[in-house]
Amino acid sequence: MLDILAFIEQKRDGKVHDSIQIENFVRGCMDGSVPDYQIAAWLMAVYFRSLNSEELISFTRALADSGDKIVFPEDMVVLDKHSTGGVGDKTTLIVIPIVSSLGVPIAKLSGRGLGFTGGTIDKLSSIPGISLQLEAREFINQVMEIGCAISGHSKALAPAEGFFYALRDVTGTVPSIPLIASSIVSKKLAGGANRFVFDVKFGNGAFMKKKDESIALAETLVGLAKAFDKKALALLTNMNAPLGRWVGNSAEVQEALDVLRGDGPQDTRNLCLSLSAAMLLIADRVKTMEEGIACAQKAIESGKALRQFKKLIEFQKGRLSDAVLAGEEMMPLAGKIAEVKSDREGYITACNALNVGLALRKLGGGRMKKGENIDLTVAIELLKKTKDHVDAKEPMARIYFNNENSLEEALNLIRDAFVVGEAPPSSELLVERIIGID
Amino acid sequence: MLDILAFIEQKRDGKVHDSIQIENFVRGCMDGSVPDYQIAAWLMAVYFRSLNSEELISFTRALADSGDKIVFPEDMVVLDKHSTGGVGDKTTLIVIPIVSSLGVPIAKLSGRGLGFTGGTIDKLSSIPGISLQLEAREFINQVMEIGCAISGHSKALAPAEGFFYALRDVTGTVPSIPLIASSIVSKKLAGGANRFVFDVKFGNGAFMKKKDESIALAETLVGLAKAFDKKALALLTNMNAPLGRWVGNSAEVQEALDVLRGDGPQDTRNLCLSLSAAMLLIADRVKTMEEGIACAQKAIESGKALRQFKKLIEFQKGRLSDAVLAGEEMMPLAGKIAEVKSDREGYITACNALNVGLALRKLGGGRMKKGENIDLTVAIELLKKTKDHVDAKEPMARIYFNNENSLEEALNLIRDAFVVGEAPPSSELLVERIIGID
Repeated sequence: MLDILAFIEQKRDGKVHDSIQIENFVRGCMDGSVPDYQIAAWLMAVYFRSLNSEELISFTRALADSGDKIVFPEDMVVLDKHSTGGVGDKTTLIVIPIVSSLGVPIAKLSGRGLGFTGGTIDKLSSIPGISLQLEAREFINQVMEIGCAISGHSKALAPAEGFFYALRDVTGTVPSIPLIASSIVSKKLAGGANRFVFDVKFGNGAFMKKKDESIALAETLVGLAKAFDKKALALLTNMNAPLGRWVGNSAEVQEALDVLRGDGPQDTRNLCLSLSAAMLLIADRVKTMEEGIACAQKAIESGKALRQFKKLIEFQKGRLSDAVLAGEEMMPLAGKIAEVKSDREGYITACNALNVGLALRKLGGGRMKKGENIDLTVAIELLKKTKDHVDAKEPMARIYFNNENSLEEALNLIRDAFVVGEAPPSSELLVERIIGID
Repeated sequence: MLDILAFIEQKRDGKVHDSIQIENFVRGCMDGSVPDYQIAAWLMAVYFRSLNSEELISFTRALADSGDKIVFPEDMVVLDKHSTGGVGDKTTLIVIPIVSSLGVPIAKLSGRGLGFTGGTIDKLSSIPGISLQLEAREFINQVMEIGCAISGHSKALAPAEGFFYALRDVTGTVPSIPLIASSIVSKKLAGGANRFVFDVKFGNGAFMKKKDESIALAETLVGLAKAFDKKALALLTNMNAPLGRWVGNSAEVQEALDVLRGDGPQDTRNLCLSLSAAMLLIADRVKTMEEGIACAQKAIESGKALRQFKKLIEFQKGRLSDAVLAGEEMMPLAGKIAEVKSDREGYITACNALNVGLALRKLGGGRMKKGENIDLTVAIELLKKTKDHVDAKEPMARIYFNNENSLEEALNLIRDAFVVGEAPPSSELLVERIIGID
């Protein structure tokens, strides 16, 4: 029997829980014997005192073991990728077909967007007919058959993770590195993949604003995965500006297709090549990032990646016309259009991702709370990106919207997002560093 | 409307609440609109981040204003005394009659014992027939008529204090100086008195073990009372050894009577004289502590204090025989007796108050949880006090008990409480310092 008060006091006083205590605690939380207010007090104590690596492993294992697990055949290499969330981040839609078209199986479990960040499941749900809540059996079969699958999380996988997340969300205990890392890794462990690439973002449009915090999170994620004998790499990537030219659910599918056809904006293409290379590297398909980038490029150029995307969508019952796949027709966009113009001539020195993410949410393209419906067709098109030249009164962004209500607020957010200066700024690295390469 | 999540995050991040936010928060807690788990997260954040003096004042006011208040006639000086709790602390039973016999009105609201510390209401309830839950009207009338009254807290006074205390008690957030201070002062404010003496104990048998923490609490209590325009003093007193020779509810009433008759142990008498002097000082009846001590001594010597005690008990319908009042007959004690003997000759160098308090609780004379019944007749008589000489096999303590079940544990605790050395230890001050004298 766990003495829950002593357990809370132990963490409050900076002492260390043993693995039995942590198992009993998680079990008590799930069977209702530990009341929410005691869990909340413990979470806040963890926010201040953290968990050491043994505690983190025990807690993560307890979360991962709290429900069903997806199991692939033994010795099968299966990858998954996780992004900590950003604005305009459609990389999953591009990387999964690239890497799986090269014969590396990917079992991708994704979430929905929350706050100012988007989610892969929302983006994909703009494709008519698509099935995004696969049964475990379907999910496994699809990975075995076509080499990849994308599904929303089943509540049966690591249910304790969802339970703790919901409580963290209302108690101010979300931004804690051990709690974030255990949440991410426990879901991945229950999801069946055994090699992971983490895209850990920093900057104003990321969950973690500060680079040093993202580094700490990236190192924790990689270390935690390795503690469970899973290969893992983390890319530390810049999210000070939105990724690509399009932000919005349906529009981002369109931009992903652009990249898969060999077009699309350079930042998005480059990040996808790096992520693909990292995945090929941990799958032991290539020896270096450079080699991985070259392979990924070839998968695009040869059309293999685009064909794999088409196969993935069709397998999950999505209906995408050949015209859309070929870029001859656009994904549906909201019908009303507004523009944000520059009030001076100069160069774009910054485009604040957070503002753009908040603007999309204002327009109904994101959600404040889990479970809210969103408008998949609203979008923000960034006509100008950082370093571009702009004339006075030239449009910098175009907004596609359905509802006038929050338009003014959204326009102001986007206007404030852009900074126009005298000269183009110096370059920022998109991939700041890679963590976990031995 | 309070954004409760932002409120928790504000405290988590070490920022400052304004008074409106705090009022809304306390109101939301009491009307049920803020769930317990959010209150618990906030309490743990306060444990780590504390409250600044403005926040502390606002929080205390919100607690004090959350229910009924006892109101004495304007301009009437009314005192109350609060002890942070110790082992063998029967000072209230002695100080109230001394000071009120000198014409200073005292409206004493008291609690029950918890953990290893005793409570005045438990001790007094060993007197047959006594009424200890006075209605506000009775309480006020009694103070006006005989100059003093002692009552348990009504739940109608500062109900928010009780609500927060109950949640702190199960979430590991009791030991926080601002939360302790707001709890104490809010109850005192609702209780109608306007001048306060705080007996803040430190040492192993106190709630606060460390002297510097007790000093911080004492300073906070005095500062907080003064912020509400109430005169206040705090005595910082040593609780490393039990106070007096008797520990146990009924037995402590007996020892209080001893002191009121001019007998009783020196430590108890001295502390009561100091506490009485502090009360006379803040009541503006004397100019110095020395003068107050002399007055208090006279109240004992003249028999005034004992007569006032008799009057107090009778007014509250308690039945104490003249033989008990005169010390010719003892208060009822449990019938079975065991002794703890020294295994060597020497001098008592320490008698651990915590162990003695825990032993009493083991014997049924204290409670683990609020609401538990306790055995008022069990007692521990300390035959030897610090500095006393003891022979080998000479008894150091006698235990009066009814139930054998936990006797062995209690005996071990008491055996371990005593340290016998070669030479008597140097003296420790009982009153370490007085805080709040200008």
